[in-house]
Amino acid sequence: MTATFTAAGLAQRFGLDVVGDGDVAVDGVATLATARPGQLGFLANPRYRNQLATTQASIVVMRADDASDAPMTALVARDPYAAFARIAALFEPVAEQPAGIHPCAVIAADAVIDPSAHIGPFVSIGARSHVGAGAVIGPGCVIGDDCVVGAGSELVARVTLVTRVRLGQRVRIHPGAVLGADGFGLAMAEGRWLKVPQLGGVRIGDDCEIGANTCIDRGALEDTVLEEDVRLDNQIQVGHNVHIGAHTAMAGCAAVAGSAKIGRYCLIGGAAGVLGHLEITDQVMVTAMSLVTHSIREPGEYSSGTPLMDNRSWRKSAARFKQLDKLFRGMRGGEKEST
Amino acid sequence: MTATFTAAGLAQRFGLDVVGDGDVAVDGVATLATARPGQLGFLANPRYRNQLATTQASIVVMRADDASDAPMTALVARDPYAAFARIAALFEPVAEQPAGIHPCAVIAADAVIDPSAHIGPFVSIGARSHVGAGAVIGPGCVIGDDCVVGAGSELVARVTLVTRVRLGQRVRIHPGAVLGADGFGLAMAEGRWLKVPQLGGVRIGDDCEIGANTCIDRGALEDTVLEEDVRLDNQIQVGHNVHIGAHTAMAGCAAVAGSAKIGRYCLIGGAAGVLGHLEITDQVMVTAMSLVTHSIREPGEYSSGTPLMDNRSWRKSAARFKQLDKLFRGMRGGEKEST
Amino acid sequence: MTATFTAAGLAQRFGLDVVGDGDVAVDGVATLATARPGQLGFLANPRYRNQLATTQASIVVMRADDASDAPMTALVARDPYAAFARIAALFEPVAEQPAGIHPCAVIAADAVIDPSAHIGPFVSIGARSHVGAGAVIGPGCVIGDDCVVGAGSELVARVTLVTRVRLGQRVRIHPGAVLGADGFGLAMAEGRWLKVPQLGGVRIGDDCEIGANTCIDRGALEDTVLEEDVRLDNQIQVGHNVHIGAHTAMAGCAAVAGSAKIGRYCLIGGAAGVLGHLEITDQVMVTAMSLVTHSIREPGEYSSGTPLMDNRSWRKSAARFKQLDKLFRGMRGGEKEST
Repeated sequence: MTATFTAAGLAQRFGLDVVGDGDVAVDGVATLATARPGQLGFLANPRYRNQLATTQASIVVMRADDASDAPMTALVARDPYAAFARIAALFEPVAEQPAGIHPCAVIAADAVIDPSAHIGPFVSIGARSHVGAGAVIGPGCVIGDDCVVGAGSELVARVTLVTRVRLGQRVRIHPGAVLGADGFGLAMAEGRWLKVPQLGGVRIGDDCEIGANTCIDRGALEDTVLEEDVRLDNQIQVGHNVHIGAHTAMAGCAAVAGSAKIGRYCLIGGAAGVLGHLEITDQVMVTAMSLVTHSIREPGEYSSGTPLMDNRSWRKSAARFKQLDKLFRGMRGGEKEST
Repeated sequence: MTATFTAAGLAQRFGLDVVGDGDVAVDGVATLATARPGQLGFLANPRYRNQLATTQASIVVMRADDASDAPMTALVARDPYAAFARIAALFEPVAEQPAGIHPCAVIAADAVIDPSAHIGPFVSIGARSHVGAGAVIGPGCVIGDDCVVGAGSELVARVTLVTRVRLGQRVRIHPGAVLGADGFGLAMAEGRWLKVPQLGGVRIGDDCEIGANTCIDRGALEDTVLEEDVRLDNQIQVGHNVHIGAHTAMAGCAAVAGSAKIGRYCLIGGAAGVLGHLEITDQVMVTAMSLVTHSIREPGEYSSGTPLMDNRSWRKSAARFKQLDKLFRGMRGGEKEST
Repeated sequence: MTATFTAAGLAQRFGLDVVGDGDVAVDGVATLATARPGQLGFLANPRYRNQLATTQASIVVMRADDASDAPMTALVARDPYAAFARIAALFEPVAEQPAGIHPCAVIAADAVIDPSAHIGPFVSIGARSHVGAGAVIGPGCVIGDDCVVGAGSELVARVTLVTRVRLGQRVRIHPGAVLGADGFGLAMAEGRWLKVPQLGGVRIGDDCEIGANTCIDRGALEDTVLEEDVRLDNQIQVGHNVHIGAHTAMAGCAAVAGSAKIGRYCLIGGAAGVLGHLEITDQVMVTAMSLVTHSIREPGEYSSGTPLMDNRSWRKSAARFKQLDKLFRGMRGGEKEST
């Protein structure tokens, strides 16, 4: 039942070169440190090069310059990690999701479900919503009114699309994610909060991935938008009217406030924050737990925060932080006096 | 099927003044920048005043002093944003939620459901719980034992009220929110954690709104309390025994540790934190990602953190932060020497 | 129906000493400040010692040196908080969860459910998964393929175990938690993200507790691991391949990036972050909202961040933070000149 692949077969399938015995076969993948004979590993980070001598992996994916003296069969790739990712996919167990609607699902009369889609148990789908060809709606998902799930998309389980959420093709959404909830729009009127109706929707481009328990609110007047191939990790918060450019990736617990606009090919670190109504250009990297408080117009890496210290030392620096302005002004005073 | 409203009609309904042609009608709302003829926009922020000249909106809500030379029909309001919020609500599509219990719901024998309430599919409701008149319990919600959902409240979908959660009237809770889970109470005993029972509940006042995937734990001995009209955005964490005063609003990803007490009319920024057992007085604003480490006794705005910098410059400042105390002490030494 | 316990009875059951009238009985627990006659309180924090004179509690758990002049019956414990936790558990209402599978549950033909387990409504359980003796699977839980729920474990409600998640015994998981979702593994290839298959699983040790809406991703090649008695609060994010040592506790909204290794008996504060691939030794405490940016090899307390200030003062210090390096270099220049 376990699939087996030879080095030569893998080379042909993925356009790689073999250095060594092409008939060697593997039935699984592993790290160099833990691989047993019959498994395939990879060497991407030069830091692990010394593991080549000790690993038991039968095949290792690596760059050309590492392959000459490799003690096992090498598969040569320009980008070993990407090649490894493609090979590893061969060994991923994929549960069969038969076409059709589970009897324990509740579908609005005017919803349109492609016959090749899979609708799991305890799913409810609202009025005028569409589920495309080959889409998979896992157990416990709730799809509200006026939503679209594009062909080949998958809602793993317990995903909620509240209303007016349109997913492109091959979008993958992990459990607990909530798309299309009311944006946080409030006006203070006579001492009480007045709710501002959220009339927009959410548009998610092709090939996006949305992590577990991540939230993407729908827009107030226009849509909240993710362009294609955006990758969001778990527990991310995306406010209403946010626009995220194609190929941008955000790590877990990041938060983007309303109406911010993030460019293409950006990398937003874990638990980083972006204030509302800002603009971040393409190819910006924000390090973990940094707060973006103004628009960023130049590509590059940006940070805020202070370094980790033992608590006793940190308390001293933190106390001094409060006195910084006094210090600077004192010094200038001193400078003035001396001139 | 689309509703249409004249300027004169809107003025009468919401107590506004018309400047210009009162017979002009609109069938939707939009921003000034994107409105097409037949839509209504608003001008609240003076920054956008120049859009009055170019917008295609047929009616614009604005302040009196902007209305004199407006090129379209103006609806004059003291607070244009609040007036706009009320008008926009006329155009919000509201799905009908028929009274009654969906056949795919599981209700405890001794739960009491008002006949005018809507209970959606895949809902379970526990022992001794009550659902009030006109309440809406959306698909996939779980209501445990001894809970109360007040009249007119709405649990949009997949909301969990674990146990002893009492909601006031017109409370609105978004998908994935969890109220009444065990507070995080632990005692270390003989090298292992001992769970401290969480015997309290959660009380939510009238007109509160709770965002998607937000958590509010139940109290250890007393209740966790939100007074009326508290507004919580998505992904917020509220620990056990916290007390939040009326009309306070908290932005996404904020976190409040156990037994903290937050006053009325506070604004807590996104991803801001409040340590446990602190007290924050009324009308305090905490900026995004700040950490409240001591009680706040004076109204005002509070912050922590460092500004965003390019990573190279930030690394230098961050390294210097660690040396701050040495610097200050060296300077004082120098001062002493010079005196 | 309310249980009543005498001081003498509690002393015998939990190995405590009575000072005062052992026949005094209580039917509930409370804080010293709110207790009414007939309730039991506790004094652990010396700060509250003055409440002994005013409390109406009929029995108070305390240390020996507080008991001599206590005006009520004292139960003497070396660790009053732990003793109180054990006593309070007597008053915790526990809903009966009958053995058996609810008719509204969907169980794979080859899943194995112990006859003494409780499976609630709207639960789905996938292929080859096992649920052990006395386990409780609350309403709306989704258990995917190849999962194990150990004996006596409880999934309160709406918990998701995606795939290859193995729970030990007496594990308790709160609503909305997601274990075993895809780790965030991506490779950039020809300008697009390529998904790296996540072939590992999640292993949770005995007696762990996982908070509401917390996420623990499954490993890329190996498993993500929590050793025994790990306690995670709500809204925590644990990346793929993370390893958390026994008896470590993490407060709400903390986040641990992929492949980090945290030791035993650590305390990670609320909203604190740990970068990927780091190692933290045993008995490390990280204060709230600190970011761990390098491995920690010595036990102790660690922090980052700046103190809370009024916004006006903070703006000045923050502006100076950006000039720190210039300041230091200027001073060294000065020093050089003067030598």
